[in-house]
Amino acid sequence: MKESATQIAEYTQAMIEAGRLFHGHGWVPATGGNFSARLSPDRVLITASGWHKGELSPEGFLIADLDGKPLDSTRKASYETLLHMQIYRHDSSAGGVLHTHSIANTVLSRRLPEIRLAGYELLKLLPGINTHDAEVTVPVFANDQDIARLAAQVDAHMKRHPETPAYLIAGHGLYAWGVNVAQARHRVEALEFMFECELWSQKQ
Amino acid sequence: MKESATQIAEYTQAMIEAGRLFHGHGWVPATGGNFSARLSPDRVLITASGWHKGELSPEGFLIADLDGKPLDSTRKASYETLLHMQIYRHDSSAGGVLHTHSIANTVLSRRLPEIRLAGYELLKLLPGINTHDAEVTVPVFANDQDIARLAAQVDAHMKRHPETPAYLIAGHGLYAWGVNVAQARHRVEALEFMFECELWSQKQ
Amino acid sequence: MKESATQIAEYTQAMIEAGRLFHGHGWVPATGGNFSARLSPDRVLITASGWHKGELSPEGFLIADLDGKPLDSTRKASYETLLHMQIYRHDSSAGGVLHTHSIANTVLSRRLPEIRLAGYELLKLLPGINTHDAEVTVPVFANDQDIARLAAQVDAHMKRHPETPAYLIAGHGLYAWGVNVAQARHRVEALEFMFECELWSQKQ
Amino acid sequence: MKESATQIAEYTQAMIEAGRLFHGHGWVPATGGNFSARLSPDRVLITASGWHKGELSPEGFLIADLDGKPLDSTRKASYETLLHMQIYRHDSSAGGVLHTHSIANTVLSRRLPEIRLAGYELLKLLPGINTHDAEVTVPVFANDQDIARLAAQVDAHMKRHPETPAYLIAGHGLYAWGVNVAQARHRVEALEFMFECELWSQKQ
Repeated sequence: MKESATQIAEYTQAMIEAGRLFHGHGWVPATGGNFSARLSPDRVLITASGWHKGELSPEGFLIADLDGKPLDSTRKASYETLLHMQIYRHDSSAGGVLHTHSIANTVLSRRLPEIRLAGYELLKLLPGINTHDAEVTVPVFANDQDIARLAAQVDAHMKRHPETPAYLIAGHGLYAWGVNVAQARHRVEALEFMFECELWSQKQ
Repeated sequence: MKESATQIAEYTQAMIEAGRLFHGHGWVPATGGNFSARLSPDRVLITASGWHKGELSPEGFLIADLDGKPLDSTRKASYETLLHMQIYRHDSSAGGVLHTHSIANTVLSRRLPEIRLAGYELLKLLPGINTHDAEVTVPVFANDQDIARLAAQVDAHMKRHPETPAYLIAGHGLYAWGVNVAQARHRVEALEFMFECELWSQKQ
Repeated sequence: MKESATQIAEYTQAMIEAGRLFHGHGWVPATGGNFSARLSPDRVLITASGWHKGELSPEGFLIADLDGKPLDSTRKASYETLLHMQIYRHDSSAGGVLHTHSIANTVLSRRLPEIRLAGYELLKLLPGINTHDAEVTVPVFANDQDIARLAAQVDAHMKRHPETPAYLIAGHGLYAWGVNVAQARHRVEALEFMFECELWSQKQ
Repeated sequence: MKESATQIAEYTQAMIEAGRLFHGHGWVPATGGNFSARLSPDRVLITASGWHKGELSPEGFLIADLDGKPLDSTRKASYETLLHMQIYRHDSSAGGVLHTHSIANTVLSRRLPEIRLAGYELLKLLPGINTHDAEVTVPVFANDQDIARLAAQVDAHMKRHPETPAYLIAGHGLYAWGVNVAQARHRVEALEFMFECELWSQKQ
């Protein structure tokens, strides 16, 4: 299967705009965060290493397979590519993955072993939830510079807990996904909103 | 009575701009919030279901009657349409209704049974108040996915307390209104400002 | 003495831009805040009543004398015009007065009888201060809907404390000034910054 | 060695954009902050005295030598020029120096004798750090209006602690640097982010 130039351009544009929006909120400081969109079952368009996510241009993206190997071997994929690929492998319906690095998700993920969200109307944005009267658990994984090992840990957790709506890495950030970049972006907005509410609600 | 295209275009533009402004403040995350403007005694222009309120375009609006039924039966009105219609039915002078979903209104509405606001200069933006030396109560209703039932509860409260200047739904957001979208927007700005002050003022 | 059209256009533009900037920071919610610039010893260009300060246009300004009387008697000057005029009368070097209405200045002015600022580098922006190693007191006046009475109180205080760099009205906001709009704006930015630092520094 | 007009234009543009970005975050209030870029081993392009860093234009910069003396003797270099020159003298690889003045860095630098940052993914943006599993100390110097004396103090500290990644002046702000303006900017973003996380994490 061959990706069309139109499809690539469209997904690129969606991620450039998500980056600008997230940067406006302070969710992708410095070179933090990374984004991807699935082009075909085994091809993913993903941000390249070292770009500022608030200032992306089409050159800031490359195509990789589900092992994280860039099709153009001269390009360097984002350091955390394997975390994206774990999600695409685990969930065949996943079409977009967005990783953000906000104040709220960093502070909470350093403080708590998992984040429980209950009673928020915005829970309805998450997969399989259709009422505020639900409780969702966002797991927090310890950070690890060995990304393959971290991806394996995430994968094992998701196999045990297929209802996992998103996850955090301590001191590092949020991974959220959806059928496309737009849905992933709405879930990021909903989760970051609820994290910020939790931060304000917690005793300090 | 027939709505003029000019009137529709003008109200649409006012709501698109309110959405952009509110999104800049973080008051309409994901697909949260919804907006409406009265076109005639029994016709309301209202945001359609599923749109991001910071990125509205004219296609994101539809016309409904006071029962919440879209004139164009192929369109889907916002899930919370009946809450807007309760306000238009209750207050014949209401010309615009805006629902926001901010950090401050979410945190406070989860914590308190009602919000009392006193001594703020911005109280003067609210209906019937002409001095800071007043106390206003913004009621908080429990969230409910049965919107007709929730609207009936709000209506019963407003009949008992006609001075209610606006209301909150716990974990869900603010409903405010005015003679037009501009006045509703100013009231939202004043209320969100006072809520944020309260959040900073409360013991945590 | 006759004001030139060029001078009026320049001052208008400076205040429109200050308004846009302040609104971006959340310092002029709804119709809160008002701005003025001195055109000649006894003529002041000032925002008209009821405008949103983030969306000013040239029609949003009028010229008044030091009694607050609009030259064009069909116009309505801002409700708080006399507070501006007190400053121009008290300090013949004052060329611009800006009143903001921020979360930080509202919360602090409701909590404290005066704000003491010490040890901030930005103190050097205030009149007569050339080191961070200084202590400045910003007085807080009780809010009063009788603006003439409030202006008289402010005036009596300034006569006793001519070193007053700016003042607050409880639950209402900040008044700051300078030789022109630019200097007043820098002082507003410095004061709002220090107020926000104080808010974060205080025990909650 | 002669600086090319192209190089000057490029560095000027990078600093103008950094200023706009930082001002959007509230990190350069009023005339706070200053920026520089090294043009050649002993020539530095630096912001002139008194400019608002969110509204820089090419006239807001001048060229100075490593003693802080402007090449054009009619210009006035920024008051804190010597702090920039200390960094360029100390670290021959330094190509850009950015000084910001944020709420978080001001509050923390007034409260703590030094800032310890550990366990943050963004630590990897700092010189010599390639894992989150590190601890970095950002020293805080007492503010001093005698900039030569303050620069000497900073210099003595850096000679003893060459691993110093950046430093704070109490109640005044952050100095960070990199091989060029882009790297310095990324470090500022990473440090300000971690400072803000610390502010939220501290008991108040």
